[in-house]
Amino acid sequence: MKKPLFITFEGPEGAGKTSVLQALIEELKPILGDDLVTTREPGGNPISEAIRDILQPTEDNGMDGRTEALLYTAARRQHLVEVILPALEKNKVVISDRYVDSSLAYQGGGRGLGVENIWQINQFAIDGLLPDLTIYLDVPSELGLARVKANRQSKIDRLDKEALSFHQTVRQTYLKLQREFSDRIKIIDATQSLEKVIDDTHALIFNALDIPKE
Amino acid sequence: MKKPLFITFEGPEGAGKTSVLQALIEELKPILGDDLVTTREPGGNPISEAIRDILQPTEDNGMDGRTEALLYTAARRQHLVEVILPALEKNKVVISDRYVDSSLAYQGGGRGLGVENIWQINQFAIDGLLPDLTIYLDVPSELGLARVKANRQSKIDRLDKEALSFHQTVRQTYLKLQREFSDRIKIIDATQSLEKVIDDTHALIFNALDIPKE
Repeated sequence: MKKPLFITFEGPEGAGKTSVLQALIEELKPILGDDLVTTREPGGNPISEAIRDILQPTEDNGMDGRTEALLYTAARRQHLVEVILPALEKNKVVISDRYVDSSLAYQGGGRGLGVENIWQINQFAIDGLLPDLTIYLDVPSELGLARVKANRQSKIDRLDKEALSFHQTVRQTYLKLQREFSDRIKIIDATQSLEKVIDDTHALIFNALDIPKE
Repeated sequence: MKKPLFITFEGPEGAGKTSVLQALIEELKPILGDDLVTTREPGGNPISEAIRDILQPTEDNGMDGRTEALLYTAARRQHLVEVILPALEKNKVVISDRYVDSSLAYQGGGRGLGVENIWQINQFAIDGLLPDLTIYLDVPSELGLARVKANRQSKIDRLDKEALSFHQTVRQTYLKLQREFSDRIKIIDATQSLEKVIDDTHALIFNALDIPKE
């Protein structure tokens, strides 16, 4: 149960990633204790946070799509070096909210920069470190965006304002990645009730961690 | 004389790049007027400047070498999109103090990240836009660093503090690039007097611009 394991969560807007992760962490924390490290890009390190500040301006600053992709990749690299790698070296279980597949889907697919191009710059950043398991929460774009609109009280961020076609391309790219890397990426139908989505995720993660059913 | 032309200046520390460029611009400005655009990375655009602020912290912030390389590449991309490309599209002559070869020499060579790796992420950033002419001012590292030490009153920056071997590798990488891309990269012996270096640079640039000798 104490083998290092790197798990990532992926999904388009409104898939319920945050709620599912929160429920899972509450289940895992009493079992794993300090052996569980949960993180999310950019991961709370000063360099990646500073990069995120550039990526999320209050108004449109004319950022080119390739600049954006390189900045996300730079933030990922530093998060990997400062947070993920040290935890894995200490034999911890690391769960990260988003990782390389997000860039492949959003920049490679959504922004039309090409999955292969985004993969190349990310290969440089992650230097071979792919997750052991990726949970992909799948939801059709219309439903996902409707959920975001209904649930979010806070200010809508830049990606929420993209056209429906952008979000559809993101989802199609995720689905393609899932088919291509089906050993690593497990798909969960996130149109189901939150309870059922959490149950499905629970089963996959507890199996990966070799935690016996109660 | 009004064809668009993209010229870059490259060289290790203490090659005299700034002085040579200044002299050349003074010669070219009366001839080309508004058709001359001189710039330097990160090029005075807010996004690239913000990236540079992350790259040049007041103290060591534990930045990983690959993060650094990705950030330089992101700043290059935005500089290209906001400054260089619009000028070339308006048929201007663009002279840039540093461009892609700097990353190949400093990160690929000096930092040991591999010229091929740095080339790959930069290919994504520059999308095929290589300079028409690159002036490489060559100086042995010992002499270059001695000049920096003697001349610079202001605070010494991060790269000046690197070991001699770092600067030697940077120079060797520049020399290798020059041999490989000898059509594009022209070498000038910067151990000569400043006057002679300016004369040699003048000859190369006025020839490229088809400006007749006075």
